[in-house]
Amino acid sequence: MPGEERPGLIDEAGALRDLSSHVGTIDSKALRPEGLAALRALDPLSLPEVRGNPRLGPCVGNVGKLLAIGLNYSDHAAETGMALPEEPIVFSKATSCISGPNDPVQIPRGSQKADWEVELGVVIGMTAKYISPAQALAHVAGYCVVNDVSERDFQTARSGQWIKGKSHDTFGPLGPWLVTADEVSDPQDLDMWLDVNGTRMQTGSTATMHFSVAEIIAHLSQFMTLHPGDVIATGTPPGVGMGQKPPVFLREGDVMELSVEGLGVQQQTVVQA
Amino acid sequence: MPGEERPGLIDEAGALRDLSSHVGTIDSKALRPEGLAALRALDPLSLPEVRGNPRLGPCVGNVGKLLAIGLNYSDHAAETGMALPEEPIVFSKATSCISGPNDPVQIPRGSQKADWEVELGVVIGMTAKYISPAQALAHVAGYCVVNDVSERDFQTARSGQWIKGKSHDTFGPLGPWLVTADEVSDPQDLDMWLDVNGTRMQTGSTATMHFSVAEIIAHLSQFMTLHPGDVIATGTPPGVGMGQKPPVFLREGDVMELSVEGLGVQQQTVVQA
Repeated sequence: MPGEERPGLIDEAGALRDLSSHVGTIDSKALRPEGLAALRALDPLSLPEVRGNPRLGPCVGNVGKLLAIGLNYSDHAAETGMALPEEPIVFSKATSCISGPNDPVQIPRGSQKADWEVELGVVIGMTAKYISPAQALAHVAGYCVVNDVSERDFQTARSGQWIKGKSHDTFGPLGPWLVTADEVSDPQDLDMWLDVNGTRMQTGSTATMHFSVAEIIAHLSQFMTLHPGDVIATGTPPGVGMGQKPPVFLREGDVMELSVEGLGVQQQTVVQA
Repeated sequence: MPGEERPGLIDEAGALRDLSSHVGTIDSKALRPEGLAALRALDPLSLPEVRGNPRLGPCVGNVGKLLAIGLNYSDHAAETGMALPEEPIVFSKATSCISGPNDPVQIPRGSQKADWEVELGVVIGMTAKYISPAQALAHVAGYCVVNDVSERDFQTARSGQWIKGKSHDTFGPLGPWLVTADEVSDPQDLDMWLDVNGTRMQTGSTATMHFSVAEIIAHLSQFMTLHPGDVIATGTPPGVGMGQKPPVFLREGDVMELSVEGLGVQQQTVVQA
């Protein structure tokens, strides 16, 4: 149940191991360099293996800020006919929207335009304020898949500011895994995709990001302090529902499946709120 | 020091009493009806009196969401020449901007247009989703003063979405007190003011809100779930710096003093980040 999740890790054989005797949740304390070092020092095989197929919660707990970047893929911008922004477009999703990677995604009441966005999520591991792009990646604890679920009408046609269309409960599936930064050799060379009902809708690569992960972190740190446990969704490649001709939006019973290379697969069934 | 604050209450004689033997911090657990009932059951005179003049931290801890409403006072809208919105304009401030009521306010590096906004802050005490205005006020734990400090250039001229200009560290002083809802007879009849260097800049009343506190809570609950410990800044009356002719912005050394009727006074000195 949400709120009753236990922390775990995936061992080399792919088995899920229970970390709850070592850490309460994977949050700001565990994500700091000393926290991750303590987890790395454990022998995974000494941890109890979790049998069966438990629900996975979000891969980061107690997220302080869930920030996101708009229109950050050059091929997605071309698709929408919009000019690339001069600086990263920053918005936020309410942290209460965060859900597990395979939890159902709710269509809000009155919604006609719920949409998908596969994104690379960046999890902060060190406090970052007024840092440069060259310093930025050292502040990353790890990466995860994010589905930046969005309601397009709520986002842009309800008296302004995107947060209204980005924040419904279940609009922020995180996971399945937090992959630590040392296991991601180049965050700017990760393929990504999203299927709806088995049809490939989004195909892309973080190689076509307009602003790189390092540039995004450095930019954000000019406007606010990033803390361990903050998560940044870095934008989406082409193929969202509103970009289809004609536009296509989520309906009850649809199934989304999405992945970023090396970070695992999410699968969500769409339900009505 | 930030992060080392202890919870307290003000007794009938106005003395500060130490609550730390009863509650760790005034956050989501303490703000729920049963949490507030437990605090109400205490005899304030049985708590240790805090001597001296300690720094006050923000009056709410572990804030989940810091939401805010734009252009919500009819007289402020008239002053700016802008039309009143059809629905509340919702934006967010990064929770990392939250500071104590009398902590220095930092001008961000490169900022020329830091500005003030006295606002009524609403602190949520019960989970609210798809509620009506008639149900809304029962979900309020209490009220506090908020200074919605803003950088106008960052807010509107840096590639979109206001959060960039609303989130710098120290841009969210909360307090001095959380006044529980039972002590605020009518949240729509509270005078408010803000002085800069002893000159009255803002004068208003929550009576001229375009959307009432109840309407704002109900509206937000259609787009996201509100949880205990969320804080909503409900908009500002006339007299902000950008509304002056010519505009006036904060400079290092300036002193802001601000209050909402019955909720205490904040005072901040402006420093350079």
